[in-house]
Amino acid sequence: MITIIELFAIATSVLAFGMALWLYTWVKAQPAGNKKLEDIGAYIQQGANTFLKREYSILSRFAGVIAILILLFIPTPIWKGSMQNIVMAVSFLIGATFSALAGKVGIQVATIANRKAAAASQTGIKFAFLAGFRGGAVMGMAVVGTSLLGVTAVFMITGDATAILGFSFGASSLALFAKAGGGIFTKTADISADLVGKVELGIPEDDPRNPAVIADNVGDNVGDVAGMGADLFDSNVASMAAALVMALYLDGSASTDNVAIVFCYAALGLLASIIGVGTARMGKLGNPNHALSSSTYATTALYVIFTAVATLVLDFSWRIWAAAIIGLGVGTIIGIASDYFTNDEKHPVHHVAKASETGPAFTILGGVSYGLLSVLPAMAGIAVAALAAYLVCAPLGPGYAMFGISMAAVGMLSIVGMIISNDAYGPIVDNARGLVEMGGLGERALRITDSLDSAGNTVKAVTKGFAIAAAGLTVIALLGAFMAEVNDAARALGMGEQFLSGFDLMNPLVFFGLLIGAAIPAVFSAMLILGVERNAQRMISEIHRQFLTIKGLKEGQEGVVPQYDRCIDIATIGALKELIPAGLMAIIVTLLVGFIGGVQAIGGFLTGNIVSGLLLALFMSNSGGLWDNTKKYIESGKFGGRGCDAHKAAVVGDTVGDPFKDTAGPSINTQITVVSLISSLMSSVFLTASLF
Amino acid sequence: MITIIELFAIATSVLAFGMALWLYTWVKAQPAGNKKLEDIGAYIQQGANTFLKREYSILSRFAGVIAILILLFIPTPIWKGSMQNIVMAVSFLIGATFSALAGKVGIQVATIANRKAAAASQTGIKFAFLAGFRGGAVMGMAVVGTSLLGVTAVFMITGDATAILGFSFGASSLALFAKAGGGIFTKTADISADLVGKVELGIPEDDPRNPAVIADNVGDNVGDVAGMGADLFDSNVASMAAALVMALYLDGSASTDNVAIVFCYAALGLLASIIGVGTARMGKLGNPNHALSSSTYATTALYVIFTAVATLVLDFSWRIWAAAIIGLGVGTIIGIASDYFTNDEKHPVHHVAKASETGPAFTILGGVSYGLLSVLPAMAGIAVAALAAYLVCAPLGPGYAMFGISMAAVGMLSIVGMIISNDAYGPIVDNARGLVEMGGLGERALRITDSLDSAGNTVKAVTKGFAIAAAGLTVIALLGAFMAEVNDAARALGMGEQFLSGFDLMNPLVFFGLLIGAAIPAVFSAMLILGVERNAQRMISEIHRQFLTIKGLKEGQEGVVPQYDRCIDIATIGALKELIPAGLMAIIVTLLVGFIGGVQAIGGFLTGNIVSGLLLALFMSNSGGLWDNTKKYIESGKFGGRGCDAHKAAVVGDTVGDPFKDTAGPSINTQITVVSLISSLMSSVFLTASLF
Repeated sequence: MITIIELFAIATSVLAFGMALWLYTWVKAQPAGNKKLEDIGAYIQQGANTFLKREYSILSRFAGVIAILILLFIPTPIWKGSMQNIVMAVSFLIGATFSALAGKVGIQVATIANRKAAAASQTGIKFAFLAGFRGGAVMGMAVVGTSLLGVTAVFMITGDATAILGFSFGASSLALFAKAGGGIFTKTADISADLVGKVELGIPEDDPRNPAVIADNVGDNVGDVAGMGADLFDSNVASMAAALVMALYLDGSASTDNVAIVFCYAALGLLASIIGVGTARMGKLGNPNHALSSSTYATTALYVIFTAVATLVLDFSWRIWAAAIIGLGVGTIIGIASDYFTNDEKHPVHHVAKASETGPAFTILGGVSYGLLSVLPAMAGIAVAALAAYLVCAPLGPGYAMFGISMAAVGMLSIVGMIISNDAYGPIVDNARGLVEMGGLGERALRITDSLDSAGNTVKAVTKGFAIAAAGLTVIALLGAFMAEVNDAARALGMGEQFLSGFDLMNPLVFFGLLIGAAIPAVFSAMLILGVERNAQRMISEIHRQFLTIKGLKEGQEGVVPQYDRCIDIATIGALKELIPAGLMAIIVTLLVGFIGGVQAIGGFLTGNIVSGLLLALFMSNSGGLWDNTKKYIESGKFGGRGCDAHKAAVVGDTVGDPFKDTAGPSINTQITVVSLISSLMSSVFLTASLF
Repeated sequence: MITIIELFAIATSVLAFGMALWLYTWVKAQPAGNKKLEDIGAYIQQGANTFLKREYSILSRFAGVIAILILLFIPTPIWKGSMQNIVMAVSFLIGATFSALAGKVGIQVATIANRKAAAASQTGIKFAFLAGFRGGAVMGMAVVGTSLLGVTAVFMITGDATAILGFSFGASSLALFAKAGGGIFTKTADISADLVGKVELGIPEDDPRNPAVIADNVGDNVGDVAGMGADLFDSNVASMAAALVMALYLDGSASTDNVAIVFCYAALGLLASIIGVGTARMGKLGNPNHALSSSTYATTALYVIFTAVATLVLDFSWRIWAAAIIGLGVGTIIGIASDYFTNDEKHPVHHVAKASETGPAFTILGGVSYGLLSVLPAMAGIAVAALAAYLVCAPLGPGYAMFGISMAAVGMLSIVGMIISNDAYGPIVDNARGLVEMGGLGERALRITDSLDSAGNTVKAVTKGFAIAAAGLTVIALLGAFMAEVNDAARALGMGEQFLSGFDLMNPLVFFGLLIGAAIPAVFSAMLILGVERNAQRMISEIHRQFLTIKGLKEGQEGVVPQYDRCIDIATIGALKELIPAGLMAIIVTLLVGFIGGVQAIGGFLTGNIVSGLLLALFMSNSGGLWDNTKKYIESGKFGGRGCDAHKAAVVGDTVGDPFKDTAGPSINTQITVVSLISSLMSSVFLTASLF
């Protein structure tokens, strides 16, 4: 049966690619806008390609070095003779390549879709919405299709769970670059363009004279579209990897029901997403918010039905099904809770807007407070989901409880195809709105893209909460996978059948790891935020230089164009330069803790990392989102509107929130996954070569 | 031998009281200043008394309710017939009373010492320094004397470790009020006075026309002097309690070497502090920084020598001695690391000052980043100290490893008498500086108090890091005490000899507790910060009312005095009102987790609470300190000096930092201790009445 299900998973992936191709063709076939719009759109596309080219060239070298290190040392030093090392290194490279491909496709389509959506908004909301949504859906289909295809193919060929972890590590390493690098890029450009353009020179936001304006728009694509895609690619693969590792260790063979369940549920989730994406549409006077949420609910309902039928027909355990549904349900609830803290119709935004009247210090204090409060529902939700999944599956036998948690993560991520589609929709219509303004497409088009954009913001808050929750559950499952890997390595080394039965908090090595692991996300995010600051200073100098040396630029002389790619280059090089120390720090500290305290310390380290990582990621994402919406709320005319003191204070909040929500906050997820996967892969090494 | 050592501890406490009395008499005997200074000083003293009276009247009712609850339910429901409940309730009340007494004495002296220091600054730095330092030392002696006396007396009478936990719980409950209540009070007054006075009306900082000016000065005393004193009283008692619990369980009797070591080392620490305080002085042209640090180093050296001699003579284990010294050493290192992040001669402050030129958003981003970075050295230091103490003591036998950690905490807190003296010195000379300005004592006096104040700020950063580190190690020891208590309760309930051997992170109940426990400090601090904001709004209305309705006040008419006590009342009532929901939330969630998940979930809960509590406390204290010093650094003429854009941005940072460093950050320590102690006290109840 397992082979049939694996083939079904591959078939679903191929179907997703077909769907992506159809959506891409549809988007491309939409009518083009005026010359100006097309020109600016082409600049953005070119800028995004410049970024990708540079990023991928650095990344390919980085991936090459890591692959060689894997080949030499992981899972065991190669001179002890292990064919596995070659498998691991190749899996790693495939994981990185697949993730890169999905990102490339996503950006390619997004930069076309934003032009098409802008052009369509001249005729009405219906096609403008569809261009935005279907452009995002190409990314959704590409990400989930490649991740499912990759995991299934690697598993079918190797039959080895550790190889899947290698594949997942490849995807995560790339995601770390895409998410944190893209995050630094986008905020560098955003802040610099605003500071020189709006504050110093007093020219409008998207003025084409500003050398950083294209970089800013490119940033929306590389940061938000590709970054979020890479993040969810990473979580999706990691959740499947963790579940597969545990399924394999449960039964000791690759052809069991548990392995089949993982592939079956993942494939059904993708199928539900394909149908959901295909049926999303709206009438001429429709509400984009409604269109997005109804197709998401449809996908969720389809997933519940599909998996229930599969469980019945294939005689899977209903307890495991329940775990998956618990994950999905809790993911939705956490998304809604995040929405409460950032939605401009709810109390927190109103409170912070009111507090802004007393000055920026109160904007910051209010946003920090609500950001900290927002941590509780999400962490309690993850805690309850993990506990419920565990308790539901525990009666199935030893080891099943932890498998239940991993299946809750798989369940939560099952509709990720739909989630990414919704999420990528946001920056596409945001960019479309900018293009409408820059291309001078008129008031009506602006009103339409405004309403599309506002729906994008609402959806973004929900999907961001969802992404963090999914990552949280996934890394808990990865902790279980780490223990399974350690026991497997210990068996291979003749250190006993069940080397580890858990990580005891009363063990000082565990506590040692715990405290250090908890500090890492704080340091990691601080390094990224400082990176944005430093990089912005470099770009500001470059903008000043261009305004000084390019004649006629400031005056807007006909035919004088700034050197957009210089700014894009600075953002790109700076982003990658600032990201590398942060990523290395996380990896080196993991290795240090492992070599000092061994696998017990690593168990504590991962736990500390998960706990403080979730805390900081939720805090930063939600307070950042809250400040963003507070600014928009005041701009909509509340508390004095644009230009008043409250607005000035809200702008300070928004600038603080930018790197919180778009650089540091969401990168923490990936940092946790990377560290978890390295630990699993290094388990053999830590077992044999640690100080204590 | 144990009786002799206990009597020695009591004798040392009495000696500390004698020292306190001598210092108090000395401070009182110093010459008074001019009439204006004495008048304002009297107002402040009266205001502090108003606050204390109100706080203690609410607190006594609160303590009464808790004592009744203890009587009824803890350690076991009283209808099962337990004499222990009465002992517990009484110990609790004694703990609360002793802590309150120490706070009362401290404030009483501080409000005298600030006047005396102000007056002495007219004649030279020598006596001004001594008045400030000796005023603070009265608090130091009173706090450590009462805590040692209380713990020793309760232990001699009951011979019961659980009763010591009850005493400690009394001290912590009071500390929670003193620290968080005082923190809300001081920041309410500070922010309101500044906003209406400096920003709206443009009158100087300490103008006596401002109805909130006295409340502001009172706040320095009740928040900084009494709050820090209560915090360290609490940590000091809790560290001894944890060590005693483990010493007792190690040997099963009250007359062992291990118990003797705890009392012996604590008493020697106090003795070293008494000598250190007594010898602190400076020449006519001396440097206050130098005077403070040389007496602290002298105390540390004395402690090392005293304990080494005692260990030799009384034949204690050198391994346990080493654990205590490790704690003391690491505490010092962490204090120095905190200093790096907040000192205005170091890179972080310079960086944030430079960033402030680009606007307040960069001030905030820079401060947040360095605050997050500052978490690593402290957490790694605590991790290394715990691991080293554990490893050093583990060879002594089972259970000794955890005892070693508790002795590291005792060692770290051994010189707490000196630490409190240094710390209380800060707000006293800060107030003295204000009095010099208000009393018009001239330029020279101002220069002298400025230099005293600057030394106070440096010392404050070190002692704050030290306090958090000490609390961190103490709560780890309390986690060990919790396990010991659970096992004791389980034995009494016939549930086996060794009910718990640890808390396994792979147990879903532990993980469930962990995630929820980690969210609590975030919610707790958010509630306090929002409390400050709400309370400040109430006080601002009252200030407006007074300026509107009191004729001649705004114009400064002779004989017209604002109603200072109305503002003090508002700050007091509001502080207590805002604090109660936050405190209750922490307690109720603890009970919920215990009743749902039992002792395993509580083990995880306490761990999550410790990890995220340490993280947030370090982050908030250090970023707050950094912003404060950045503002002062710019005011000293750097980057444009007072009034320039960088300064305005730095003021925003300072206002954000105020509730971070003086309300939320330092209260988290106490929140963790309270929750740890409740868990220990409730262990029997959680064992018998939990859902899972």
